[in-house]
Amino acid sequence: MISKLCRKISEKNAPVVVGLDPNLDFIPEFILNKSFEKFGESLEGAADAVWEFNRGIVDATAELIPAVKPQIAMYEQFGLPGLEAYKKTVDYCHEKGLLVIGDVKRGDIGSTSLSYAKAHIGSIRVGSKEFKPFDEDFCTVNPYLGTDGIKPFVDECEASDRGIFVLVKTSNPSSGEFQDRLIEGRPLYEHVAEKVNEWGSLSMDGDYSNVGCVVGATYPEMGAALRKLMPHSYILVPGYGAQGGKAEDLKGFFNPDGLGAIVNSSRGIIAAWKNKEYAKFGAENYADASREAVKAMIDDINSAKGV
Amino acid sequence: MISKLCRKISEKNAPVVVGLDPNLDFIPEFILNKSFEKFGESLEGAADAVWEFNRGIVDATAELIPAVKPQIAMYEQFGLPGLEAYKKTVDYCHEKGLLVIGDVKRGDIGSTSLSYAKAHIGSIRVGSKEFKPFDEDFCTVNPYLGTDGIKPFVDECEASDRGIFVLVKTSNPSSGEFQDRLIEGRPLYEHVAEKVNEWGSLSMDGDYSNVGCVVGATYPEMGAALRKLMPHSYILVPGYGAQGGKAEDLKGFFNPDGLGAIVNSSRGIIAAWKNKEYAKFGAENYADASREAVKAMIDDINSAKGV
Repeated sequence: MISKLCRKISEKNAPVVVGLDPNLDFIPEFILNKSFEKFGESLEGAADAVWEFNRGIVDATAELIPAVKPQIAMYEQFGLPGLEAYKKTVDYCHEKGLLVIGDVKRGDIGSTSLSYAKAHIGSIRVGSKEFKPFDEDFCTVNPYLGTDGIKPFVDECEASDRGIFVLVKTSNPSSGEFQDRLIEGRPLYEHVAEKVNEWGSLSMDGDYSNVGCVVGATYPEMGAALRKLMPHSYILVPGYGAQGGKAEDLKGFFNPDGLGAIVNSSRGIIAAWKNKEYAKFGAENYADASREAVKAMIDDINSAKGV
Repeated sequence: MISKLCRKISEKNAPVVVGLDPNLDFIPEFILNKSFEKFGESLEGAADAVWEFNRGIVDATAELIPAVKPQIAMYEQFGLPGLEAYKKTVDYCHEKGLLVIGDVKRGDIGSTSLSYAKAHIGSIRVGSKEFKPFDEDFCTVNPYLGTDGIKPFVDECEASDRGIFVLVKTSNPSSGEFQDRLIEGRPLYEHVAEKVNEWGSLSMDGDYSNVGCVVGATYPEMGAALRKLMPHSYILVPGYGAQGGKAEDLKGFFNPDGLGAIVNSSRGIIAAWKNKEYAKFGAENYADASREAVKAMIDDINSAKGV
């Protein structure tokens, strides 16, 4: 699966992923009102607005980008109707030819991780039939439980040609509280990176492994060090834009050939219409604002990756 | 909320929680067949079987126990219909007077954790209305992202009188890979425990904090040490029974007054009918087998806690 992502990134010359993380604050009133008219001020109404909003953004940006990254928490917060909107979004993105990175950050003991792996990147047997419940192409996973919590995901990568991104160094301010602590002279995140290499060797796909990692744009020096430590892992980079990561910080996340990293932006793209810079589009044309913001982001990242 | 759990544990003299983690393998054929007749061999069929199976077990055991712990992965693996069965199970357990610990192990950067917290133990605003999407009483959370990933859950504990259990030392074989690594002479899990104390001080409820922790029964010495390190945190103890943890190992998890820990068993209870010891009940009476297994577990744990 990672080779497919590389190919799409190269085809579109866009090492960029759009984070579909719609809070209601990001959704223009005309969409909210229409959904509330249909379903009332309810979880169903909120979920319908999220779905309509997403569809607009996907329609406007799909031809420019290789992939999207819906953050499942933003859907789970609207309960079952929200998760239905998540699934509709995943399916719609596939129809539009996009790869989907489910940002689910799951992880548990082995037998439980197996169920999560089946749910998101694999398939499950019911009687004589097989189903792919959420059917993302990639998902993010949390390494705190160690190898037996990750291995079922890696096995599913091999069995179903999918991929994962393991949290190594996250973009948030307090990520260092545990991740940066020194163990035998090296930070915990480097020990996790070492394991990512080990897990990654079990599911290679071309130059890269189906086991990628997450390293926040907000920690550029660590990103550059981790790029070298995990030569076969693609880095999914959150934290660009709204969280403070800048393009010039990102050079070290890429390999000399310009591959090896894919940068996410969520708010910066999907809420672009609320940004002074794109205000001229107006709420009605929020998707056009997102399209412009994607174009600007692609230029920004490409100029920085230094190829 | 933790005071409510303490009260229920004392009333029933049962520091025990039943893990509602139904794999299809655990469900008697007569239930599966009935559900497949109604919904076909489909995700809907599987979810219906899970729900019917759960209902039987809850009906047979509710008067004996204070709480249940559904593992959401076992529902998520059946997609949207599975999550619908999860929600029905949560609601049904509440009707039966049980507290519900949602074993969801969520955790993300701050703004995203806030959405998870609202989804599971809080409420979300849609227009002028408020909804409680999943409405568990407690949920489990993963600490890898540090304070800003946990704080939104703690805030929701305070705002909505709910609780969380933070993963400290998990029950699985490879939990030591990162959790046991020494940082300034002490294992990572002790550093997490220190933070649990800090987070816990922000939401006290009687003698204990609404911020509890997870420590596996499979690591009894660490359990005893962690009991002392986190005097105000209830310990949710997985790993008893099928995973290998024995009652005599659990004494150290309890405080001298017999409080301070609640022990989970999943397979050992819900799949008791498949166990030689309870085979006499037969598949039709699987719920009675679970009831007997719960009684035996309560006696076993109470004899071990040494009060």
